Amino acid sequence: MTMIPPNGNLFARLPHAAPQHAAPQEDITELLTTPDVRIERIVSTGQASPSGFWYDQDESEWVVLLTGGAGLRFESETEVRELKPGDYLHIPAHARHRVEWTHPSEPTVWLAVHVR
Amino acid sequence: MTMIPPNGNLFARLPHAAPQHAAPQEDITELLTTPDVRIERIVSTGQASPSGFWYDQDESEWVVLLTGGAGLRFESETEVRELKPGDYLHIPAHARHRVEWTHPSEPTVWLAVHVR
Repeated sequence: MTMIPPNGNLFARLPHAAPQHAAPQEDITELLTTPDVRIERIVSTGQASPSGFWYDQDESEWVVLLTGGAGLRFESETEVRELKPGDYLHIPAHARHRVEWTHPSEPTVWLAVHVR
Repeated sequence: MTMIPPNGNLFARLPHAAPQHAAPQEDITELLTTPDVRIERIVSTGQASPSGFWYDQDESEWVVLLTGGAGLRFESETEVRELKPGDYLHIPAHARHRVEWTHPSEPTVWLAVHVR
């Protein structure tokens, strides 16, 4: 008989957003890892990518923002994409991008699916 | 230069829940398909699995319920799992399961990641 793992909840145990005392790092929880896929919950509490930093990933990433808000900038684009709850996009491998800002007072919950 | 696809929104263009005139089928939108992964938005508006029907899938499925609610039953378990927004679980391949009910009046939005 197959054992089915218990349920989890994406909005449980959120770190608190505290603008004056922002955590230096986003909070990342690995939810599923297979040889081809990694699903993560990422919680941002006001963090942004360091000045001049660009993510340049070997894997493609499908990501949805579920709460809060964020500004996502691609190097190949001039405008910052403003993401609100429910907004998703597919980031091709090596599409250089950075997080310009995340919501200063609400936790920003992302669900990211990294695909090899 | 890599073209980045435009954003979409998971909560856009939801079918209306209409208990008296329920759509016969759930509404399924394919969001990403690669050789190893298929990401879908599924919107239930009161549907349940037909009596006596069990899903028995060759792929494993990671699924999260984002709005509405549902009762999920595994053949290997006696209790129905009641899912509320944010609840996620990993359904191993061939873990026979069925949807006992979905919310009668609010759309139930699921995000499903099928992994080969």
